[in-house]
Amino acid sequence: MDVELPEINLKAIGAVRNEIKEPTHQDSSEVISEIVIDSGLTKALDDLDKFSHIIVLYWIHRSRRPAPMKVHPRGDPERALMGVFATRSPSRPNPIGKATVKLLERQGNILKVRGLDAIDGTPVLDIKPYIPGYDSVDDCRAPSWMVKK
Amino acid sequence: MDVELPEINLKAIGAVRNEIKEPTHQDSSEVISEIVIDSGLTKALDDLDKFSHIIVLYWIHRSRRPAPMKVHPRGDPERALMGVFATRSPSRPNPIGKATVKLLERQGNILKVRGLDAIDGTPVLDIKPYIPGYDSVDDCRAPSWMVKK
Repeated sequence: MDVELPEINLKAIGAVRNEIKEPTHQDSSEVISEIVIDSGLTKALDDLDKFSHIIVLYWIHRSRRPAPMKVHPRGDPERALMGVFATRSPSRPNPIGKATVKLLERQGNILKVRGLDAIDGTPVLDIKPYIPGYDSVDDCRAPSWMVKK
Repeated sequence: MDVELPEINLKAIGAVRNEIKEPTHQDSSEVISEIVIDSGLTKALDDLDKFSHIIVLYWIHRSRRPAPMKVHPRGDPERALMGVFATRSPSRPNPIGKATVKLLERQGNILKVRGLDAIDGTPVLDIKPYIPGYDSVDDCRAPSWMVKK
């Protein structure tokens, strides 16, 4: 290809603390986590509690490297291989996870959230407010077995 | 804080091509873009067209560094300063953008999309399928002026 693909350096802004110590395929929608943000960035969290939900971008530090081109979705060998970009597999060329979670509480530099699909110690890259209409799509299509009820 | 914050290195997987040559606050919901993915990763895009919408993570390479702690949302000085993590400002500690866009077409290593809020030449970090119920929230709260109709 004729476009330049730069290398990019970033620094975690915080880390996840929870009871999940090893990678798992289990549903994490009820898991409670704390996101401990670098205390030098505490002021940048102001006003976040105006939102009920936030988007967390995190570094999947335990992902398999190098990433495969195709994976069995959800690690289930009975499902046909799919291109990794068509899945949410943690093993991807840049293993960045994206979760939309409920913000239960903010205390200083600590965010308490529900539903974060990340294990204890996961480095956090960014926090964004979840904005309905910008982050959600009303009329969309996806394989029915992937849709979360 | 007592958690370790590692430095992280990643490599763009592709780049954006469109008509937007300079950063802007204009609505990009009708902008058509091509995402040109590294041809070595073409197979990892297989099955993506089973989804009508995709999530694009990209590196906001023209963002202001270092990032401010507080910003005027949408760059509008008449709006009160907010913590940068409570906004979608491009000037953030790790300037990673996240957009949910309509996938119009995939041809080999090129994705044609509508609604990508990124300028020409923006490095792309990851592509994920948009999964309703996982990426969307039915019952949520956000300041009404931020919600996109």
